[in-house]
Amino acid sequence: MKLASLKNNTRDGQLVVVSRDLSRCVTVTDVASTMQQLLDNWANLAPALQQRYEALNSGSFNGEMPFEPTQCESPLPRAYQWADGSAYVNHVELVRKARNSEMPPSFWTDPLMYQGGSDDFIGPRDPIEAISTEHGIDFEGEVAVITDDVPMAVSPEQALKKVRLIMLVNDVSLRGLIPNELAKGFGFFNSKPASSFSPVAVTPDELGDKWQDGRVHLPLLSTYNDKPFGKPNAGIDMTFNFGQLIAHAAKTRNLGAGAVIGSGTVSNKQGTEYGTAINEGGVGYSCIAEIRMIETIRDGKPSTSFMQFGDTIKMEMLDSDGQSIFGAIDQQVVQYKV
Amino acid sequence: MKLASLKNNTRDGQLVVVSRDLSRCVTVTDVASTMQQLLDNWANLAPALQQRYEALNSGSFNGEMPFEPTQCESPLPRAYQWADGSAYVNHVELVRKARNSEMPPSFWTDPLMYQGGSDDFIGPRDPIEAISTEHGIDFEGEVAVITDDVPMAVSPEQALKKVRLIMLVNDVSLRGLIPNELAKGFGFFNSKPASSFSPVAVTPDELGDKWQDGRVHLPLLSTYNDKPFGKPNAGIDMTFNFGQLIAHAAKTRNLGAGAVIGSGTVSNKQGTEYGTAINEGGVGYSCIAEIRMIETIRDGKPSTSFMQFGDTIKMEMLDSDGQSIFGAIDQQVVQYKV
Repeated sequence: MKLASLKNNTRDGQLVVVSRDLSRCVTVTDVASTMQQLLDNWANLAPALQQRYEALNSGSFNGEMPFEPTQCESPLPRAYQWADGSAYVNHVELVRKARNSEMPPSFWTDPLMYQGGSDDFIGPRDPIEAISTEHGIDFEGEVAVITDDVPMAVSPEQALKKVRLIMLVNDVSLRGLIPNELAKGFGFFNSKPASSFSPVAVTPDELGDKWQDGRVHLPLLSTYNDKPFGKPNAGIDMTFNFGQLIAHAAKTRNLGAGAVIGSGTVSNKQGTEYGTAINEGGVGYSCIAEIRMIETIRDGKPSTSFMQFGDTIKMEMLDSDGQSIFGAIDQQVVQYKV
Repeated sequence: MKLASLKNNTRDGQLVVVSRDLSRCVTVTDVASTMQQLLDNWANLAPALQQRYEALNSGSFNGEMPFEPTQCESPLPRAYQWADGSAYVNHVELVRKARNSEMPPSFWTDPLMYQGGSDDFIGPRDPIEAISTEHGIDFEGEVAVITDDVPMAVSPEQALKKVRLIMLVNDVSLRGLIPNELAKGFGFFNSKPASSFSPVAVTPDELGDKWQDGRVHLPLLSTYNDKPFGKPNAGIDMTFNFGQLIAHAAKTRNLGAGAVIGSGTVSNKQGTEYGTAINEGGVGYSCIAEIRMIETIRDGKPSTSFMQFGDTIKMEMLDSDGQSIFGAIDQQVVQYKV
């Protein structure tokens, strides 16, 4: 099943069921008006939506509308939790290497995770409003899941069964603010502004055998200023699967239905030491910071800039027929007007 | 105006208006059923509730019920954001001192803040379920505000005008997990389990001249296992006021209506170097960690234990007539059963 939230001048948007090919959608107000209402009562409400979805896919449907990703909020326009892991440890190792800092061996067994702001997500086609390019504006392409209620101290195996929906994320980061903020010892805050998610969130069955071992085994395609920038496979080098990430988040507290758990920046080692850019024949990267790290390791300093006002970033995943699964995140960086 | 959310087997509880003396309450379903509904549309809905509140205070009211804090959820049973500052820098300096670590001078000008879990707050009279006393279970008494929508890059002065409600917090902490977690560099996560808030949230005008300069100028009374443990004044030694804390949270992103911003553990220096326990004639502390730090600085090691299963912690604030303003947080630590 594929679901989205359309902009309707409310804080939570209008829940719609979207056809598999992303061409059409229908409201389902008799079942649920918002994504959070559905998640609050998933077991009871999801079967009715699944029927609606199948009918929509099999032909024209009473009340159907064209599906317009530009009219989308993030699937959850706001959420009660957004916890983002760093499951691709290659990414972490690279960041550390670039600043000559050893990575503790525990990072391979104990997930890194930070709690992000979830009260004001931006839509998948909305501009990324930033105050200054001196903040070092970067995108981060990731996969995220939305969970049902998860009890404290759950096992990774049980946690994995709580995944209700899967989507893509652009976890916008302000690299220029990170060093000072992390030095304060309390983790990210100002350096992680509002994130955006793919137009559509899908149930795991939509991915068929590409959803395996709690990982999405498909390339994450990032296109930066209309040029291919990354196509690393999200199923490769993901040290912790989503069951492990959810279980980590729930280690000392329950998670409420609708918690969003992210994978961290998708990053592949590609049989090389740290991966290779697309224009050098590699699978590239899912954030600018990584290519800058490669440049720093290789040349002593980075040559690629962070994002400028007017720059665009597009992220999506295609199925084996080349069809977009989640729709595309496609955003432009603009200057925030105070 | 005083507001609470009663348990009603829903995730968001039943919004009620509570009489000033906390004896009676009324539902207001024709205006709003939940606290978040009210916050989503505060400017339009609050005036009607204020009228209800005044009528309730002036005599018997149709449909009024006795107000029972034991039936309360936290005022927001779940929230889209819970960001907790460390405005009482004395607390931070003490923690550092106990582990022989210098505090950077920037801590006096740039607030520390972490993003906490907000998807599953516990009620003010609900047990604190913990997995193991080896985690070093501690309470942290704080003041928190709930904001309206706050635009990115707001000034502290403008931010202060966005405060809609004030309440108390018990920011439960697992001290035993903090050192390893902070060493990972991403801040708190597992070491900050679910927090609880006072039964009642009040509008700033309820505090009269005790709400000044964005600070609550009243002692926060903590009673640990039925013995007075702390009575520091929340208006003293608060380096950053709520305007500054909200502005810090909104530095690079908008805050959505209903964002909860905490003060950090209330802590007074009391004219001494680091404060004094109540049984030594001082105003005491708002968490066990501080008394342990004093002991460590004085004796080389702490003598007070963290919380054991069965221990109780009560927190409240009284007005000049000795009347509880927010009602009391009153919780017992119990063992979590997986």
